[in-house]
Amino acid sequence: MVEKVYSEGVVTRLSQYLKCVVQLKETGKRTATSREISDSTDVNSAEVRRDLIYFGIKGKRGVGFSIDDLIESFNKILGYDRIVNVALIGAGNLGKAILNYKMLDRFGFKIENVFDNDPSKIGKNISGRVVRNIKEIKDVILEKGMEIAIIVVPPEEAQKVANTLVSAGIKVIMNYTSVPIKVPKKVKIETTDPIEKLLHTLYYLSHTGYAEYK
Amino acid sequence: MVEKVYSEGVVTRLSQYLKCVVQLKETGKRTATSREISDSTDVNSAEVRRDLIYFGIKGKRGVGFSIDDLIESFNKILGYDRIVNVALIGAGNLGKAILNYKMLDRFGFKIENVFDNDPSKIGKNISGRVVRNIKEIKDVILEKGMEIAIIVVPPEEAQKVANTLVSAGIKVIMNYTSVPIKVPKKVKIETTDPIEKLLHTLYYLSHTGYAEYK
Repeated sequence: MVEKVYSEGVVTRLSQYLKCVVQLKETGKRTATSREISDSTDVNSAEVRRDLIYFGIKGKRGVGFSIDDLIESFNKILGYDRIVNVALIGAGNLGKAILNYKMLDRFGFKIENVFDNDPSKIGKNISGRVVRNIKEIKDVILEKGMEIAIIVVPPEEAQKVANTLVSAGIKVIMNYTSVPIKVPKKVKIETTDPIEKLLHTLYYLSHTGYAEYK
Repeated sequence: MVEKVYSEGVVTRLSQYLKCVVQLKETGKRTATSREISDSTDVNSAEVRRDLIYFGIKGKRGVGFSIDDLIESFNKILGYDRIVNVALIGAGNLGKAILNYKMLDRFGFKIENVFDNDPSKIGKNISGRVVRNIKEIKDVILEKGMEIAIIVVPPEEAQKVANTLVSAGIKVIMNYTSVPIKVPKKVKIETTDPIEKLLHTLYYLSHTGYAEYK
Protein backbone atom coordinates (compact mmCIF):
# COMPACT_ATOMS: atom_id res chain seq x y z
CA MET A 1 0.00 0.00 0.00
CA VAL A 2 1.22 3.44 -0.93
CA GLU A 3 0.49 6.11 1.68
CA LYS A 4 0.12 9.26 -0.37
CA VAL A 5 -3.38 9.34 -1.76
CA TYR A 6 -5.44 11.51 -4.03
CA SER A 7 -9.15 12.09 -4.40
CA GLU A 8 -11.31 10.14 -6.88
CA GLY A 9 -11.37 13.23 -9.09
CA VAL A 10 -7.57 13.50 -9.30
CA VAL A 11 -7.16 9.78 -10.00
CA THR A 12 -9.86 9.94 -12.68
CA ARG A 13 -8.21 12.95 -14.35
CA LEU A 14 -4.68 11.50 -14.19
CA SER A 15 -5.91 8.16 -15.55
CA GLN A 16 -7.52 10.05 -18.45
CA TYR A 17 -4.31 12.00 -19.09
CA LEU A 18 -2.29 8.78 -19.04
CA LYS A 19 -4.62 7.11 -21.50
CA CYS A 20 -4.54 10.15 -23.75
CA VAL A 21 -0.73 10.43 -23.90
CA VAL A 22 -0.27 6.69 -24.43
CA GLN A 23 -2.66 6.98 -27.39
CA LEU A 24 -0.79 10.04 -28.70
CA LYS A 25 2.46 8.07 -28.44
CA GLU A 26 0.88 5.26 -30.50
CA THR A 27 0.27 7.78 -33.27
CA GLY A 28 4.00 8.60 -33.33
CA LYS A 29 3.91 11.87 -31.39
CA ARG A 30 6.76 12.78 -29.00
CA THR A 31 5.31 15.86 -27.26
CA ALA A 32 1.87 16.98 -26.10
CA THR A 33 0.43 20.31 -24.96
CA SER A 34 -2.04 20.82 -22.11
CA ARG A 35 -4.51 21.89 -24.82
CA GLU A 36 -4.12 18.53 -26.63
CA ILE A 37 -4.58 16.64 -23.37
CA SER A 38 -7.63 18.79 -22.64
CA ASP A 39 -9.12 18.12 -26.08
CA SER A 40 -9.15 14.34 -25.61
CA THR A 41 -10.18 14.25 -21.96
CA ASP A 42 -13.03 16.72 -21.34
CA VAL A 43 -10.89 18.31 -18.59
CA ASN A 44 -10.43 22.01 -19.35
CA SER A 45 -6.87 23.03 -20.17
CA ALA A 46 -6.52 25.31 -17.12
CA GLU A 47 -7.21 22.34 -14.88
CA VAL A 48 -4.79 20.13 -16.85
CA ARG A 49 -2.09 22.79 -16.33
CA ARG A 50 -2.95 23.10 -12.63
CA ASP A 51 -2.55 19.33 -12.20
CA LEU A 52 0.74 19.19 -14.12
CA ILE A 53 2.13 22.09 -12.05
CA TYR A 54 0.98 20.50 -8.78
CA PHE A 55 2.83 17.30 -9.65
CA GLY A 56 5.93 19.22 -10.76
CA ILE A 57 5.82 18.07 -14.39
CA LYS A 58 7.69 20.59 -16.51
CA GLY A 59 7.13 21.40 -20.20
CA LYS A 60 8.79 23.71 -22.70
CA ARG A 61 7.00 26.91 -23.73
CA GLY A 62 5.71 26.55 -27.28
CA VAL A 63 6.60 22.85 -27.45
CA GLY A 64 4.66 21.24 -24.65
CA PHE A 65 5.49 18.22 -22.53
CA SER A 66 7.60 15.20 -23.45
CA ILE A 67 5.17 12.29 -23.81
CA ASP A 68 7.65 9.82 -22.32
CA ASP A 69 8.10 12.10 -19.29
CA LEU A 70 4.35 12.40 -18.88
CA ILE A 71 3.82 8.64 -19.06
CA GLU A 72 6.62 8.03 -16.54
CA SER A 73 5.27 10.70 -14.18
CA PHE A 74 1.65 9.58 -14.30
CA ASN A 75 2.62 5.94 -13.77
CA LYS A 76 4.80 6.93 -10.81
CA ILE A 77 2.17 9.18 -9.22
CA LEU A 78 -0.57 6.60 -9.60
CA GLY A 79 1.62 3.60 -8.78
CA TYR A 80 0.93 1.78 -12.07
CA ASP A 81 4.11 -0.19 -12.39
CA ARG A 82 3.05 -3.77 -12.39
CA ILE A 83 1.37 -6.35 -14.61
CA VAL A 84 -2.19 -6.95 -13.46
CA ASN A 85 -3.87 -10.28 -13.99
CA VAL A 86 -7.56 -9.87 -14.84
CA ALA A 87 -10.14 -12.69 -14.94
CA LEU A 88 -12.73 -12.64 -17.72
CA ILE A 89 -16.02 -14.44 -17.16
CA GLY A 90 -18.01 -15.01 -20.33
CA ALA A 91 -16.63 -16.12 -23.70
CA GLY A 92 -19.41 -14.60 -25.82
CA ASN A 93 -19.19 -11.76 -28.35
CA LEU A 94 -18.41 -9.08 -25.77
CA GLY A 95 -15.83 -11.31 -24.10
CA LYS A 96 -14.12 -11.85 -27.46
CA ALA A 97 -14.19 -8.11 -28.18
CA ILE A 98 -12.47 -7.42 -24.84
CA LEU A 99 -9.79 -10.05 -25.53
CA ASN A 100 -9.08 -8.41 -28.88
CA TYR A 101 -8.81 -4.94 -27.35
CA LYS A 102 -5.07 -4.31 -27.69
CA MET A 103 -4.90 -1.23 -25.45
CA LEU A 104 -5.39 -3.37 -22.33
CA ASP A 105 -1.96 -4.83 -22.90
CA ARG A 106 -0.36 -1.37 -23.28
CA PHE A 107 -1.50 -0.50 -19.76
CA GLY A 108 -0.31 -3.74 -18.17
CA PHE A 109 -3.64 -5.54 -17.97
CA LYS A 110 -3.30 -9.22 -18.88
CA ILE A 111 -6.34 -11.40 -19.41
CA GLU A 112 -5.02 -14.94 -19.41
CA ASN A 113 -7.92 -16.70 -17.77
CA VAL A 114 -11.32 -16.87 -19.43
CA PHE A 115 -14.23 -18.79 -17.96
CA ASP A 116 -17.60 -19.93 -19.28
CA ASN A 117 -20.27 -22.44 -18.30
CA ASP A 118 -21.17 -23.41 -21.87
CA PRO A 119 -19.87 -26.94 -22.64
CA SER A 120 -19.54 -25.98 -26.33
CA LYS A 121 -17.07 -23.22 -25.37
CA ILE A 122 -15.09 -24.86 -22.55
CA GLY A 123 -11.72 -26.14 -23.79
CA LYS A 124 -11.96 -24.12 -27.02
CA ASN A 125 -9.29 -21.57 -27.88
CA ILE A 126 -10.43 -17.95 -28.23
CA SER A 127 -7.86 -15.28 -29.06
CA GLY A 128 -5.09 -17.53 -27.75
CA ARG A 129 -6.74 -18.44 -24.44
CA VAL A 130 -8.27 -21.82 -23.65
CA VAL A 131 -11.73 -21.26 -22.14
CA ARG A 132 -11.91 -22.81 -18.67
CA ASN A 133 -14.90 -24.31 -16.89
CA ILE A 134 -16.53 -21.72 -14.64
CA LYS A 135 -16.44 -24.32 -11.87
CA GLU A 136 -12.65 -23.80 -11.66
CA ILE A 137 -13.00 -20.06 -11.16
CA LYS A 138 -12.58 -19.91 -7.39
CA ASP A 139 -9.50 -22.14 -7.37
CA VAL A 140 -7.83 -20.23 -10.21
CA ILE A 141 -8.50 -16.80 -8.67
CA LEU A 142 -7.18 -17.90 -5.29
CA GLU A 143 -4.13 -19.60 -6.84
CA LYS A 144 -3.20 -16.60 -9.02
CA GLY A 145 -4.16 -13.97 -6.44
CA MET A 146 -6.29 -12.11 -9.00
CA GLU A 147 -8.06 -8.98 -7.73
CA ILE A 148 -9.98 -7.76 -10.80
CA ALA A 149 -12.64 -9.61 -12.79
CA ILE A 150 -14.72 -8.60 -15.80
CA ILE A 151 -18.22 -10.09 -16.03
CA VAL A 152 -19.72 -10.42 -19.51
CA VAL A 153 -22.26 -13.17 -18.91
CA PRO A 154 -26.01 -13.18 -19.69
CA PRO A 155 -28.00 -11.02 -17.21
CA GLU A 156 -29.60 -13.99 -15.46
CA GLU A 157 -26.16 -15.37 -14.52
CA ALA A 158 -24.59 -12.10 -13.40
CA GLN A 159 -25.40 -12.15 -9.69
CA LYS A 160 -24.45 -15.83 -9.26
CA VAL A 161 -21.08 -15.24 -10.92
CA ALA A 162 -20.53 -12.12 -8.78
CA ASN A 163 -21.22 -14.11 -5.60
CA THR A 164 -18.60 -16.70 -6.61
CA LEU A 165 -16.08 -13.94 -7.39
CA VAL A 166 -16.68 -12.28 -4.02
CA SER A 167 -16.22 -15.56 -2.18
CA ALA A 168 -12.95 -16.08 -4.10
CA GLY A 169 -11.70 -12.73 -2.78
CA ILE A 170 -12.01 -10.58 -5.93
CA LYS A 171 -11.80 -6.89 -4.98
CA VAL A 172 -13.01 -5.17 -8.14
CA ILE A 173 -15.71 -6.30 -10.55
CA MET A 174 -16.20 -4.64 -13.92
CA ASN A 175 -19.88 -5.34 -14.60
CA TYR A 176 -20.52 -5.30 -18.35
CA THR A 177 -23.88 -7.04 -18.11
CA SER A 178 -27.16 -5.13 -18.40
CA VAL A 179 -28.22 -5.74 -14.80
CA PRO A 180 -27.05 -4.26 -11.51
CA ILE A 181 -25.06 -6.56 -9.22
CA LYS A 182 -25.08 -6.48 -5.42
CA VAL A 183 -21.83 -7.07 -3.55
CA PRO A 184 -20.51 -6.42 -0.03
CA LYS A 185 -19.11 -2.92 0.60
CA LYS A 186 -15.48 -4.13 0.52
CA VAL A 187 -15.85 -5.00 -3.18
CA LYS A 188 -15.86 -2.23 -5.79
CA ILE A 189 -18.22 -2.45 -8.76
CA GLU A 190 -17.53 -0.56 -11.97
CA THR A 191 -20.38 -0.43 -14.45
CA THR A 192 -20.37 0.69 -18.06
CA ASP A 193 -23.69 0.83 -19.75
CA PRO A 194 -24.38 2.29 -23.20
CA ILE A 195 -28.00 3.04 -22.25
CA GLU A 196 -27.25 5.99 -19.97
CA LYS A 197 -25.08 7.69 -22.57
CA LEU A 198 -27.65 7.03 -25.29
CA LEU A 199 -30.44 8.49 -23.17
CA HIS A 200 -28.30 11.50 -22.36
CA THR A 201 -27.58 11.92 -26.02
CA LEU A 202 -31.24 11.70 -26.90
CA TYR A 203 -31.96 14.65 -24.63
CA TYR A 204 -29.20 16.59 -26.31
CA LEU A 205 -30.78 15.88 -29.70
CA SER A 206 -34.22 17.17 -28.82
CA HIS A 207 -33.40 20.19 -26.68
CA THR A 208 -31.61 23.46 -27.00
CA GLY A 209 -30.77 26.41 -24.77
CA TYR A 210 -29.36 26.88 -21.30
CA ALA A 211 -29.87 25.14 -18.01
CA GLU A 212 -32.35 26.54 -15.53
CA TYR A 213 -32.12 23.70 -13.00
CA LYS A 214 -28.78 22.23 -11.96
CA MET B 1 -37.23 21.23 -30.03
CA VAL B 2 -38.47 21.44 -26.45
CA GLU B 3 -37.81 24.77 -24.79
CA LYS B 4 -37.38 23.92 -21.14
CA VAL B 5 -33.88 22.61 -20.64
CA TYR B 6 -31.79 21.20 -17.86
CA SER B 7 -28.07 21.03 -17.16
CA GLU B 8 -25.90 18.07 -18.20
CA GLY B 9 -25.87 16.97 -14.55
CA VAL B 10 -29.66 16.84 -14.26
CA VAL B 11 -30.05 14.99 -17.55
CA THR B 12 -27.36 12.50 -16.51
CA ARG B 13 -29.02 11.89 -13.16
CA LEU B 14 -32.53 11.57 -14.60
CA SER B 15 -31.29 9.19 -17.31
CA GLN B 16 -29.69 7.08 -14.58
CA TYR B 17 -32.92 7.09 -12.56
CA LEU B 18 -34.93 6.08 -15.63
CA LYS B 19 -32.57 3.22 -16.41
CA CYS B 20 -32.68 2.08 -12.79
CA VAL B 21 -36.49 2.03 -12.52
CA VAL B 22 -36.91 0.29 -15.89
CA GLN B 23 -34.53 -2.41 -14.63
CA LEU B 24 -36.43 -2.65 -11.35
CA LYS B 25 -39.67 -3.06 -13.30
CA GLU B 26 -38.07 -5.91 -15.29
CA THR B 27 -37.47 -7.73 -12.00
CA GLY B 28 -41.22 -7.52 -11.26
CA LYS B 29 -41.15 -4.62 -8.77
CA ARG B 30 -44.02 -2.07 -8.70
CA THR B 31 -42.58 0.58 -6.34
CA ALA B 32 -39.14 2.04 -5.64
CA THR B 33 -37.73 4.18 -2.81
CA SER B 34 -35.25 7.03 -3.25
CA ARG B 35 -32.80 4.82 -1.34
CA GLU B 36 -33.17 2.04 -3.93
CA ILE B 37 -32.68 4.51 -6.78
CA SER B 38 -29.65 5.90 -4.97
CA ASP B 39 -28.16 2.43 -4.47
CA SER B 40 -28.09 1.66 -8.20
CA THR B 41 -27.05 5.10 -9.46
CA ASP B 42 -24.23 6.47 -7.28
CA VAL B 43 -26.38 9.58 -6.69
CA ASN B 44 -26.88 10.05 -2.95
CA SER B 45 -30.44 9.60 -1.75
CA ALA B 46 -30.82 13.23 -0.57
CA GLU B 47 -30.10 14.40 -4.11
CA VAL B 48 -32.50 11.81 -5.57
CA ARG B 49 -35.21 13.15 -3.24
CA ARG B 50 -34.36 16.75 -4.13
CA ASP B 51 -34.74 15.95 -7.85
CA LEU B 52 -38.02 14.08 -7.39
CA ILE B 53 -39.42 16.97 -5.31
CA TYR B 54 -38.26 19.54 -7.86
CA PHE B 55 -40.09 17.71 -10.63
CA GLY B 56 -43.18 17.26 -8.49
CA ILE B 57 -43.07 13.46 -8.41
CA LYS B 58 -44.96 12.25 -5.34
CA GLY B 59 -44.43 9.05 -3.41
CA LYS B 60 -46.08 7.40 -0.40
CA ARG B 61 -44.32 7.46 2.95
CA GLY B 62 -43.02 3.99 3.78
CA VAL B 63 -43.90 2.64 0.32
CA GLY B 64 -41.94 4.78 -2.10
CA PHE B 65 -42.77 5.80 -5.64
CA SER B 66 -44.85 3.95 -8.21
CA ILE B 67 -42.40 2.68 -10.83
CA ASP B 68 -44.87 3.29 -13.68
CA ASP B 69 -45.34 6.90 -12.48
CA LEU B 70 -41.57 7.40 -12.31
CA ILE B 71 -41.03 6.01 -15.82
CA GLU B 72 -43.81 8.19 -17.21
CA SER B 73 -42.49 11.31 -15.44
CA PHE B 74 -38.85 10.82 -16.44
CA ASN B 75 -39.81 10.15 -20.07
CA LYS B 76 -41.99 13.25 -20.09
CA ILE B 77 -39.37 15.50 -18.46
CA LEU B 78 -36.62 14.31 -20.76
CA GLY B 79 -38.78 14.11 -23.88
CA TYR B 80 -38.08 10.41 -24.53
CA ASP B 81 -41.26 9.46 -26.28
CA ARG B 82 -40.17 8.29 -29.69
CA ILE B 83 -38.46 5.37 -31.39
CA VAL B 84 -34.89 6.29 -32.30
CA ASN B 85 -33.20 4.71 -35.27
CA VAL B 86 -29.50 4.09 -34.58
CA ALA B 87 -26.89 3.10 -37.18
CA LEU B 88 -24.28 0.51 -36.21
CA ILE B 89 -20.99 0.51 -38.07
CA GLY B 90 -18.96 -2.66 -37.58
CA ALA B 91 -20.32 -6.21 -37.55
CA GLY B 92 -17.54 -7.71 -35.41
CA ASN B 93 -17.77 -9.19 -31.92
CA LEU B 94 -18.57 -5.91 -30.21
CA GLY B 95 -21.16 -5.06 -32.87
CA LYS B 96 -22.85 -8.42 -32.32
CA ALA B 97 -22.79 -7.90 -28.55
CA ILE B 98 -24.55 -4.54 -28.99
CA LEU B 99 -27.19 -6.06 -31.28
CA ASN B 100 -27.90 -8.72 -28.66
CA TYR B 101 -28.22 -6.16 -25.88
CA LYS B 102 -31.96 -6.31 -25.20
CA MET B 103 -32.16 -3.21 -23.01
CA LEU B 104 -31.68 -0.92 -26.03
CA ASP B 105 -35.12 -1.96 -27.24
CA ARG B 106 -36.73 -1.23 -23.87
CA PHE B 107 -35.62 2.40 -24.18
CA GLY B 108 -36.79 2.86 -27.76
CA PHE B 109 -33.42 2.50 -29.51
CA LYS B 110 -33.74 0.44 -32.69
CA ILE B 111 -30.68 -0.74 -34.56
CA GLU B 112 -31.97 -1.90 -37.92
CA ASN B 113 -29.04 -0.87 -40.10
CA VAL B 114 -25.64 -2.48 -39.68
CA PHE B 115 -22.70 -1.67 -41.96
CA ASP B 116 -19.31 -3.26 -42.57
CA ASN B 117 -16.62 -3.12 -45.24
CA ASP B 118 -15.70 -6.81 -44.99
CA PRO B 119 -16.97 -8.69 -48.10
CA SER B 120 -17.27 -11.87 -46.02
CA LYS B 121 -19.77 -10.10 -43.73
CA ILE B 122 -21.76 -7.97 -46.20
CA GLY B 123 -25.11 -9.58 -47.04
CA LYS B 124 -24.88 -11.99 -44.09
CA ASN B 125 -27.56 -11.99 -41.43
CA ILE B 126 -26.46 -11.17 -37.87
CA SER B 127 -29.06 -11.12 -35.10
CA GLY B 128 -31.80 -10.62 -37.67
CA ARG B 129 -30.17 -7.75 -39.61
CA VAL B 130 -28.61 -8.09 -43.04
CA VAL B 131 -25.16 -6.45 -42.98
CA ARG B 132 -24.97 -3.66 -45.56
CA ASN B 133 -21.98 -2.43 -47.52
CA ILE B 134 -20.38 0.54 -45.77
CA LYS B 135 -20.48 2.35 -49.12
CA GLU B 136 -24.26 2.68 -48.72
CA ILE B 137 -23.96 4.35 -45.35
CA LYS B 138 -24.41 7.96 -46.42
CA ASP B 139 -27.47 7.23 -48.55
CA VAL B 140 -29.14 5.14 -45.86
CA ILE B 141 -28.52 7.69 -43.11
CA LEU B 142 -29.86 10.54 -45.24
CA GLU B 143 -32.87 8.48 -46.38
CA LYS B 144 -33.83 7.39 -42.84
CA GLY B 145 -32.90 10.67 -41.17
CA MET B 146 -30.77 8.89 -38.59
CA GLU B 147 -29.04 11.11 -36.01
CA ILE B 148 -27.12 8.63 -33.84
CA ALA B 149 -24.43 6.16 -34.93
CA ILE B 150 -22.36 3.65 -32.99
CA ILE B 151 -18.84 3.00 -34.29
CA VAL B 152 -17.32 -0.39 -33.46
CA VAL B 153 -14.75 -0.68 -36.26
CA PRO B 154 -10.98 -1.38 -35.98
CA PRO B 155 -9.03 1.69 -34.71
CA GLU B 156 -7.41 2.41 -38.08
CA GLU B 157 -10.85 2.81 -39.72
CA ALA B 158 -12.45 4.91 -36.97
CA GLN B 159 -11.65 8.42 -38.22
CA LYS B 160 -12.57 7.63 -41.83
CA VAL B 161 -15.93 6.21 -40.78
CA ALA B 162 -16.53 9.23 -38.54
CA ASN B 163 -15.85 11.61 -41.43
CA THR B 164 -18.42 9.81 -43.57
CA LEU B 165 -20.96 9.93 -40.75
CA VAL B 166 -20.41 13.65 -40.25
CA SER B 167 -20.86 14.34 -43.95
CA ALA B 168 -24.11 12.32 -43.85
CA GLY B 169 -25.40 14.62 -41.10
CA ILE B 170 -25.09 12.34 -38.08
CA LYS B 171 -25.34 14.42 -34.88
CA VAL B 172 -24.12 12.02 -32.23
CA ILE B 173 -21.40 9.37 -32.50
CA MET B 174 -20.91 6.73 -29.83
CA ASN B 175 -17.24 5.89 -30.25
CA TYR B 176 -16.56 2.36 -28.99
CA THR B 177 -13.18 2.06 -30.70
CA SER B 178 -9.92 2.43 -28.77
CA VAL B 179 -8.88 5.66 -30.49
CA PRO B 180 -10.09 9.25 -30.16
CA ILE B 181 -12.06 10.65 -33.10
CA LYS B 182 -12.07 14.28 -34.24
CA VAL B 183 -15.32 15.83 -35.42
CA PRO B 184 -16.67 19.36 -35.94
CA LYS B 185 -18.12 21.03 -32.83
CA LYS B 186 -21.72 20.56 -33.99
CA VAL B 187 -21.32 16.79 -33.62
CA LYS B 188 -21.31 15.21 -30.17
CA ILE B 189 -18.94 12.34 -29.42
CA GLU B 190 -19.64 9.90 -26.60
CA THR B 191 -16.77 7.63 -25.65
CA THR B 192 -16.76 4.57 -23.44
CA ASP B 193 -13.44 3.04 -22.73
CA PRO B 194 -12.75 0.28 -20.21
CA ILE B 195 -9.15 1.44 -19.81
CA GLU B 196 -9.92 4.55 -17.73
CA LYS B 197 -12.09 2.62 -15.32
CA LEU B 198 -9.49 -0.15 -15.06
CA LEU B 199 -6.72 2.35 -14.35
CA HIS B 200 -8.87 4.07 -11.76
CA THR B 201 -9.57 0.73 -10.19
CA LEU B 202 -5.90 -0.13 -10.10
CA TYR B 203 -5.22 2.97 -8.05
CA TYR B 204 -7.98 1.98 -5.68
CA LEU B 205 -6.39 -1.46 -5.24
CA SER B 206 -2.95 -0.19 -4.29
CA HIS B 207 -3.78 2.82 -2.13
CA THR B 208 -5.59 3.54 1.08
CA GLY B 209 -6.46 6.60 3.16
CA TYR B 210 -7.85 10.05 2.50
CA ALA B 211 -7.36 12.60 -0.22
CA GLU B 212 -4.86 15.40 0.28
CA TYR B 213 -5.16 16.89 -3.22
CA LYS B 214 -8.50 17.36 -4.92
